[in-house]
Amino acid sequence: MVKVQETIESVSGFRVAGVHAGLKKDNALDFALIRSRVDCVTAGVFTTNKVKAAPVLLNMSRIANNPEKIRAVAINTVSANACTGWQGMDNARKTSDMVAEHLDIDTEQVLVMSTGVIGTQLPMDKIAKGVELSTENLGRDWEATATAMMTTDTRPKYASVKVITAHGEYTIAGVVKGAGMIAPNMATMLSVVVTDAKLTLEQVQTALKTANAQSYNQIVVDGDTSTNDMVVLMANGMSTTSIDAGYDMQTFQNALNALTQYLAQAVVRDGEGVTKFVTLDIQGADSDESAEKIGHTIASSILTKSAFYGNDANWGRIVAAAGRAGVDFEPLKTSLWISPGEELFEDDKGLLIFKSGTPTDYQESDALAIMSEDSIYITLDCGIGDGQSTIWTCDISHDYISINADYRS
Amino acid sequence: MVKVQETIESVSGFRVAGVHAGLKKDNALDFALIRSRVDCVTAGVFTTNKVKAAPVLLNMSRIANNPEKIRAVAINTVSANACTGWQGMDNARKTSDMVAEHLDIDTEQVLVMSTGVIGTQLPMDKIAKGVELSTENLGRDWEATATAMMTTDTRPKYASVKVITAHGEYTIAGVVKGAGMIAPNMATMLSVVVTDAKLTLEQVQTALKTANAQSYNQIVVDGDTSTNDMVVLMANGMSTTSIDAGYDMQTFQNALNALTQYLAQAVVRDGEGVTKFVTLDIQGADSDESAEKIGHTIASSILTKSAFYGNDANWGRIVAAAGRAGVDFEPLKTSLWISPGEELFEDDKGLLIFKSGTPTDYQESDALAIMSEDSIYITLDCGIGDGQSTIWTCDISHDYISINADYRS
Repeated sequence: MVKVQETIESVSGFRVAGVHAGLKKDNALDFALIRSRVDCVTAGVFTTNKVKAAPVLLNMSRIANNPEKIRAVAINTVSANACTGWQGMDNARKTSDMVAEHLDIDTEQVLVMSTGVIGTQLPMDKIAKGVELSTENLGRDWEATATAMMTTDTRPKYASVKVITAHGEYTIAGVVKGAGMIAPNMATMLSVVVTDAKLTLEQVQTALKTANAQSYNQIVVDGDTSTNDMVVLMANGMSTTSIDAGYDMQTFQNALNALTQYLAQAVVRDGEGVTKFVTLDIQGADSDESAEKIGHTIASSILTKSAFYGNDANWGRIVAAAGRAGVDFEPLKTSLWISPGEELFEDDKGLLIFKSGTPTDYQESDALAIMSEDSIYITLDCGIGDGQSTIWTCDISHDYISINADYRS
Repeated sequence: MVKVQETIESVSGFRVAGVHAGLKKDNALDFALIRSRVDCVTAGVFTTNKVKAAPVLLNMSRIANNPEKIRAVAINTVSANACTGWQGMDNARKTSDMVAEHLDIDTEQVLVMSTGVIGTQLPMDKIAKGVELSTENLGRDWEATATAMMTTDTRPKYASVKVITAHGEYTIAGVVKGAGMIAPNMATMLSVVVTDAKLTLEQVQTALKTANAQSYNQIVVDGDTSTNDMVVLMANGMSTTSIDAGYDMQTFQNALNALTQYLAQAVVRDGEGVTKFVTLDIQGADSDESAEKIGHTIASSILTKSAFYGNDANWGRIVAAAGRAGVDFEPLKTSLWISPGEELFEDDKGLLIFKSGTPTDYQESDALAIMSEDSIYITLDCGIGDGQSTIWTCDISHDYISINADYRS
């Protein structure tokens, strides 16, 4: 069992900063920098949206061209630098130029991330101020770094895992911002994960892809995919481990999975207007991909999310959402259980409320008691195969509508 | 230009009734019957959800087996007869048996529709009462008939078109219930369209398929597809037209399209918690199918719907939703206009707010004025082909969440 710590003490060779560049009001932190003393082997995963923000396009190209030379990531909030045309791309490049100059590295070694309103150009004077302050204040304040990435997030989200081996130890640490796609036009989900473990490029790429598939890709706040989504994993090899982490990749992978799952779940918990954390455990589908599609469809259904908000054990909406997921589904073979909490205790799935196409004779008061909890675990067994997927999601509340409707008017 | 009337005077050979069977409280109408004096050539379109209610399965089979012999449709509200297993199927059959007995026709000539809560069995004593009362009270009260189909609908929805030709006239009339998929577990969208025109089976099938594709399939209230969705078109050939309507199918098709569009739009207007009617005119996609996918993705986006509610000209969310529709989309070739109303006046698309991948320098106050209207027309030109699709949708409001969250708790 991997222990995820809700703090980050130190990751060898990495220094960070979160500063006030003047993008936000009231001296709020709004510009972050993460820097490695030596080159990092780096992998990235990027939004599948056809509308990609300038920093996404820039990083895709840089990681493809220099995957073993990355040194720094600069992150600004307030402006997402998406739908900003050639000027936006130019501003992204200029940001990296300034960071490179201050750190005395090559601009190609710098990644940039932006989050905030779509369609506004970066205010380059303030960005310059952010670069100057952050490069001058590099240290170990990961909380300030995570705070400086926030938009509608209500709290900074960061964590770490320390892995102790017979040959020494290494750390994996990560920061994330999220909170619904967006409000208003806020582009969501940026995450930087760093480690001082020593890994090859192929190991970094495989590890990130694997971890991402079972963490960030398994969360649904509102079903909208942002123009700015991006996760990078940087490994600088500066830990005290005498041998490569790669000698035991399974241990590294387990640690990375646990860390990214923790961070991904933190995004759901801090989702806009969220009152309830829901785990959807989809079993017995004809494939893992089908299970994932069913889970995503349920998690994205406004009706299902409204029912969660109302503490309503609305199996009808859940089953109906599964039925329109576009994959094999047979209600007569389907069963549904609800249980309080975030995981099952000794494989007890809880209260069976739907079996073989019809509701059971469960007591509504029992169901209501479970659904009234802050965390609910829902097991849907499709009964037709071995496909499985776990999705973490949340309810939709009046506050979500308010947050997302009332901004401009 | 076809004139759709918001009333139904008479359709030769059809008689209808809407009665109180005791399913609803306070003497509210809750059971409807539509009957033709002679056999009808009939076509149906049914939900694509893998979870299909018993009446859907029954009607699919009956229309497939006896497409030229259908005589009646019985419709109950309160219980959807979905996820009710074999007993549910048996109850659907028994309903049709009772109707057949009272009308002295064959049970295979009777269709049944149900709407209401998923997972409850039909109370057959009340259904029997509904059959008895409705068969005894057949007449021309289409308003009562449409009223007896309502669940969370706030008003009955019915309309007709009279087509006058050189050889006589015929009428097409329709009733519909909708209002969001559901609340709570309410299965949505039932529509019965009848005509006294004389048509062949192939003509009825083609006409319904064509009309459905540009009416009921183009509306989005919340993106959830119900287990009970169903539209049937019945033609009894009893009009005074001396020749077949089929001699001028284009005229019939135009009239049917106008009628079903009117009824489909009425469903959106009466959607749960709806404050705004939005027309999405997607142009320049690489195909009509791509345009439709883009329109559906925008219309189903909780974020976009929240923005509509907030009178927010949030082109960022619209473009970002288009970018995740899973079809070709190039923001740099995309333009977006907003205009008040439900259609364009002399092809004036209104205020251009996004062009070639970036926002224009439009005034926010101008955009706010347009978005504050009850009806908004949004034109999205993708700039890469000739694909076009029009989708009618609505906002999502606090009331929608309340209606769908607060039922059981």
